[in-house]
Amino acid sequence: MAAKNGSEAAEEHTSSAEIRSFFDSAPPLKNSLEITDKLKEFLDKNSLSAGDGRANRIVCVTSGGTTVPLEQRCVRYIDNFASGHRGAASTEYFLKAGYVVIFLYRRGTCQPYCRSLPADPFLECFEFIDESHIKVREPHSEAVKMAISDHQNVVEKGQLLKLPFTTIFEYLQMLQMVATSLRGLGPHAMFYLAAAVSDFYVPWKSMAEHKIQSGSGPLDMSLVQVPKMLAVLRKEWAPFAYCISFKLETDKNILLKKADMALSKYKMHVVVANELSTRNEEVVVVTGDEKVSVCRDKTQVGCDVEDPLIKLLVEKHAIHIVDSCS
Amino acid sequence: MAAKNGSEAAEEHTSSAEIRSFFDSAPPLKNSLEITDKLKEFLDKNSLSAGDGRANRIVCVTSGGTTVPLEQRCVRYIDNFASGHRGAASTEYFLKAGYVVIFLYRRGTCQPYCRSLPADPFLECFEFIDESHIKVREPHSEAVKMAISDHQNVVEKGQLLKLPFTTIFEYLQMLQMVATSLRGLGPHAMFYLAAAVSDFYVPWKSMAEHKIQSGSGPLDMSLVQVPKMLAVLRKEWAPFAYCISFKLETDKNILLKKADMALSKYKMHVVVANELSTRNEEVVVVTGDEKVSVCRDKTQVGCDVEDPLIKLLVEKHAIHIVDSCS
Repeated sequence: MAAKNGSEAAEEHTSSAEIRSFFDSAPPLKNSLEITDKLKEFLDKNSLSAGDGRANRIVCVTSGGTTVPLEQRCVRYIDNFASGHRGAASTEYFLKAGYVVIFLYRRGTCQPYCRSLPADPFLECFEFIDESHIKVREPHSEAVKMAISDHQNVVEKGQLLKLPFTTIFEYLQMLQMVATSLRGLGPHAMFYLAAAVSDFYVPWKSMAEHKIQSGSGPLDMSLVQVPKMLAVLRKEWAPFAYCISFKLETDKNILLKKADMALSKYKMHVVVANELSTRNEEVVVVTGDEKVSVCRDKTQVGCDVEDPLIKLLVEKHAIHIVDSCS
Repeated sequence: MAAKNGSEAAEEHTSSAEIRSFFDSAPPLKNSLEITDKLKEFLDKNSLSAGDGRANRIVCVTSGGTTVPLEQRCVRYIDNFASGHRGAASTEYFLKAGYVVIFLYRRGTCQPYCRSLPADPFLECFEFIDESHIKVREPHSEAVKMAISDHQNVVEKGQLLKLPFTTIFEYLQMLQMVATSLRGLGPHAMFYLAAAVSDFYVPWKSMAEHKIQSGSGPLDMSLVQVPKMLAVLRKEWAPFAYCISFKLETDKNILLKKADMALSKYKMHVVVANELSTRNEEVVVVTGDEKVSVCRDKTQVGCDVEDPLIKLLVEKHAIHIVDSCS
C-alpha cells in the first residue's frame, strides 16, 4: 500500500481550535477585497439582501478539485482528477430553475454551457478564412453558439457569478466568505458542494520553502487531515441554509455507508452518493428519511443525470424554505 | 519539513534493471499504435526518413509537467505547476528557424501561438451577435487572429506534430517512442526537454487500488525515485541526437552546481539553468566549455527570452551536425 492511515483512535470531531489553526496557518487570500466587492455587488443586483420567495433563491455551487501545495514556493502539489463537469452541468439546471448561482470553481475546469465542446475549443472550433473572417468549424457550430451565447446571457444578466480557486487554502477561505455573505438569506440559500476537496494537506509552516530535492533515496511525506469544514458551515457560517454535499467512492461496497456517515456527522440535509465509474448515469440522493436513486433519462439524447437531480433538490429546497418559515 | 530524502548512499546511476522495472510496472499506453502511425506519417511527410542538411532538422520539444497517480483508479495525483509556456514559446521559435517540431505536451497546458490569449480564451474572446455571427472582442482581436491562423498554418503544412500526455508513465513511454523513431536521423535530431518531469512516483503495483480513505489520522506516503531516463535517452534511444535538458530551482545558490551535475551525469550537450522567479527574463546556457547568460531583450515590446535562447541553440546544433558528419 502506498498510503496508510494513522491512529483511528484520534479525535473524530473537528474542534474550533483545529479550524482556527488551519486558517491562521493558511497563506492569506490575495484578492479577498475584490471578492468581497464582487459578492456584495452580485447580491445587491439580484435584490438578495432581504430575499424571500421563489425568485430569490440562490445556490453556491462548488466545482472541480482543490490542490495541496507541497512546497511554499509551489512547484509540486497534490491534485485530483475532478473535471468540474458535475458542477458545470448542475449550474445550468439551477439557472434554468430560476436560481441565482455563485459558481465557486477550480481554475481551468469545465464551465457552464461548455460541456459539449472539444478538449481545446479555442484551437479546434475556429478556422481562419482571411484577415477579417474567422469561421466556426461545422461539426462544432451548435455547441459554440450555445456556449458563447448562453454563457454571455447569464453573466450579463447578472444571474451567474464565477469565482475561481486553486488551492485548498483559497477554496476554504472563499467558501467561508460566500457562506457568511449569504447568512442573511437564511433558508433561501443553498450550498451544493460538488467540489472535490482535499482530505489531507501539509500545514503551510511545516512546508519546505524551496523545491524538494531529489537525492538518491525515497521521498517520505506526512500529510495531516484537512479539518472538516462542512460541520462549521452548517453550524456557524450559514446555519439556516440548505446544504448538500457529495460522496464519491471507487468502491461501491462502502459508498452508501459513507454517505450515511457524512449525513449524520456533518448534519447535511442531503448527501449525493456517486460511484466513480457510473457517476454520469446514476446517483443516490441520501437524506435522513430515504435513499432515492436518480438516473439519467437514457431514452432521450443529450440528457444528463443532473437534470432530474436538480429538479429533485429544488423541490426539497422549497419544502425546507416553507418548513423554516412556518 | 514536509519531506525528507532517504539514504544518500544509495546507487547514483540508473541501472537497466531499474528502467526495465519502471516500464514493466507501468500501465500500458492505450493509444500506442495510433502514436506510432502519427509519427511515421509525420516523418514521411517531412521527408525525414533519410534527412540531412538545414531543411531537415527536427526537434522534439517536451512541455508542461507530468503527474504521478497515487491510486490505480486515479482520483488523487501529484502534479507540478508547469504552465508549458517555455515549451510553447520555444516551439514557435524553432518553427521560425525552419525546424520541424514534435511537441510532446501535457494536456491542457499552453499551446504554440496561444501565449498572449486570456486565461479562458474561448469564453473571453468571443461575443455572440446574432444567430449567424460571432465577433472577436476588440482587445483580443490580434491575439486571436495570430493564434488561429499561425497555429492552423503550421499544423496544416505538417511542420508541427502535437502529442499530449498526462502521467509520468505516459510521458516516458512516449518519449521513448519518439526517440527511437528519430534515431535514424542521427545528429539532425534535437531533444529540447523542457517538460517538468516528476522525480518521485508510486510504483503501479504498490499503489492503492481504491480511493485512499480519509480516516482520522495523518497520511504517510512513500514515493520512490523515477529512474533518470536522460542517460538512457543519450546512450540507447537516440545516441547521436543533440540533447538539451533543463534545470529549474527556487534556490539560486544551488542552481548552477546542479546544472553542472546534470551535464556530466546524463551526458547532455546543454543544460539550460533557470531560477523560478526570473525564468522569463534570464536563463544560463551551460555546456562543458562555458556558461552563457541569455536575457530577454527588454528594449523591445513582446520579446521573449526564448528568442535569443533558440537562436543560440540552433547555432550549437549546426556545429554538432557538422562535427558529427566530419
